[in-house]
Amino acid sequence: MERESRLAGTVRPGGRTAKVRAAVLQATQDELVERGFDGLGMDQVAARAGVGKTTVYRRWGTAARLVTDLMTELAEQSAPPPDTGGIDDALRANALSVLGAVNDPRLGATFQAVIAAATCNEEAATALRAFYTRRIAEWAEVVDAAVGRGELPEGTDGPELIRAVSAPLYYRLVVTREPVDEVVAERAAARALAAARAGAFIGAPGG
Amino acid sequence: MERESRLAGTVRPGGRTAKVRAAVLQATQDELVERGFDGLGMDQVAARAGVGKTTVYRRWGTAARLVTDLMTELAEQSAPPPDTGGIDDALRANALSVLGAVNDPRLGATFQAVIAAATCNEEAATALRAFYTRRIAEWAEVVDAAVGRGELPEGTDGPELIRAVSAPLYYRLVVTREPVDEVVAERAAARALAAARAGAFIGAPGG
Repeated sequence: MERESRLAGTVRPGGRTAKVRAAVLQATQDELVERGFDGLGMDQVAARAGVGKTTVYRRWGTAARLVTDLMTELAEQSAPPPDTGGIDDALRANALSVLGAVNDPRLGATFQAVIAAATCNEEAATALRAFYTRRIAEWAEVVDAAVGRGELPEGTDGPELIRAVSAPLYYRLVVTREPVDEVVAERAAARALAAARAGAFIGAPGG
Repeated sequence: MERESRLAGTVRPGGRTAKVRAAVLQATQDELVERGFDGLGMDQVAARAGVGKTTVYRRWGTAARLVTDLMTELAEQSAPPPDTGGIDDALRANALSVLGAVNDPRLGATFQAVIAAATCNEEAATALRAFYTRRIAEWAEVVDAAVGRGELPEGTDGPELIRAVSAPLYYRLVVTREPVDEVVAERAAARALAAARAGAFIGAPGG
């Protein structure tokens, strides 16, 4: 919670700390896209951001922590919109948000760089896990609200349903290397919803 | 077809060509697991396999082609068993076969190495795509047979249903970096099946 409020304060527009963080995270993302996780250097990030090295070392300490903070910021940006429609619209919006992220040249390359690094680097894996844990938990609230409205069976596992919407998109993107488009996204949402309506997502959480 | 029969001949036990290929592919896999895709060298593979460099260069040409051939061999090994039970057993067997592969130290590391390389290397991506195209097509026949027996709705998209069984496992493995166990595998199969029974996989193929 304390971390939450610190970050919220940090990104307050106009604050000097916020400007430094924004510049450093943008430089981190640029370097990550161009050089990959293993090529990421603190000095290069500081130079690119136009920020003193001392500030970057003192505040982030290691390149891996820069990536972790970048992923925190990206998680904030991918929070679900206010829940206004039904669960079908919400899951569709979720799938289209994943689609937009993975097909965006800069954002897509960022995720691919961290996903690649995470196969053999525990810090990259931790940053990735933190991002998805947060994103999945936030979108799961949309599922819980739908259960509350009686749109989905009681006991539907929100995090698992959210994972099921994203999984087919990432599977094509990084595993089978097949194209990911709007049809793929909409079908992923519709299929996860059909299974949820049939009660296939009722079960112990986290399973 | 010609390629199929050549490979079938190649792996005939006892043949000299088969023995060379087996030794070279095993050395390729060892090097891939230890050094990653970018660290894979033809000379090291030849030395490790105890095979002349000239043979390896003449037969495979590049390190990427060694990986492609390795993936071809792994695809052959992951073909579905004879279809004896119902579709629920078959999809469960499919999910458990993915689980066994990704959690096997050697095989899991092989896939992670190629998946990581594929994020920035087109040859690795092509090898990966070829592996999954073949694996998905072979398992899709099991779905077609179930449709034929009336177990699933007419028009159910076999390749898409097979992708849907694997996707949640790989999503956890390489994207969210969460554990993948038998419960995850069985739920992936059960949820894909529930959606298929509800008609959510009826649609144009390849979508």
